[in-house]
Amino acid sequence: MTPDCVRRSSCPLSIALEIFGDKWTLLILRDLLFKQATSFKDFQASDEQIASNILADRLSRLSAAGIVSSARSPDDARVILYRPTSKGLDLLPVLVEAILWAARYEQTAAPAKLLKRMREDREGFMRTVRERFSPRSER
Amino acid sequence: MTPDCVRRSSCPLSIALEIFGDKWTLLILRDLLFKQATSFKDFQASDEQIASNILADRLSRLSAAGIVSSARSPDDARVILYRPTSKGLDLLPVLVEAILWAARYEQTAAPAKLLKRMREDREGFMRTVRERFSPRSER
Repeated sequence: MTPDCVRRSSCPLSIALEIFGDKWTLLILRDLLFKQATSFKDFQASDEQIASNILADRLSRLSAAGIVSSARSPDDARVILYRPTSKGLDLLPVLVEAILWAARYEQTAAPAKLLKRMREDREGFMRTVRERFSPRSER
Repeated sequence: MTPDCVRRSSCPLSIALEIFGDKWTLLILRDLLFKQATSFKDFQASDEQIASNILADRLSRLSAAGIVSSARSPDDARVILYRPTSKGLDLLPVLVEAILWAARYEQTAAPAKLLKRMREDREGFMRTVRERFSPRSER
């Protein structure tokens, strides 16, 4: 994350891209929100095969930006578990729109049923995702 | 743009990020859609001061991905004018959601009136933008 003082402009889109404008950051969020990934190992297991140095860098930027929070696993103190904050959950609409756009114009393996749900009941779909991360237990 | 054959996965979000996941591509689209930018010079004039080699690279990727089209200026054949295609216009929801997210969580200079319009009449706002690029004259 770029500190406020050295931001290239005060345009909201520019700032958004300084935070998540790369090929990996939103994929980590995808795994957190849609694939129940919580640990470093989980993120590494994705099809895109993120390099571990890039993953470590992006997780630390996501934490610094307040998009994910982390805590040691109660079962194994060596393991850090990540979860989205409200700020992270509020990126859901960006993910959904990007997914719908790609599914429309590119050859993807997006499941038709999921796309239909996103298209026809966007709010309901997002609510279901949010409910998995109840604010009560947010760290 | 990554050719289909070497894509890192068939996930729609991953493919979307292979196309526009960087700090500059969507800013060029912002200038095209919201700031009436059409020429290389126009894009260079933005606050973020994109380097000309990056700008040239991104414009050529945007063309290859079918997100912008280009044609020589009728007034000066040395000047190339860019405009969004329907595929480019269909990235509007991604831009709008990213802008609203950043305006909510970061210190930005987003005009309150514009944000209000995007929030309260998202579809109407996008229609107004689209109307500036009538499909009739799309190249």
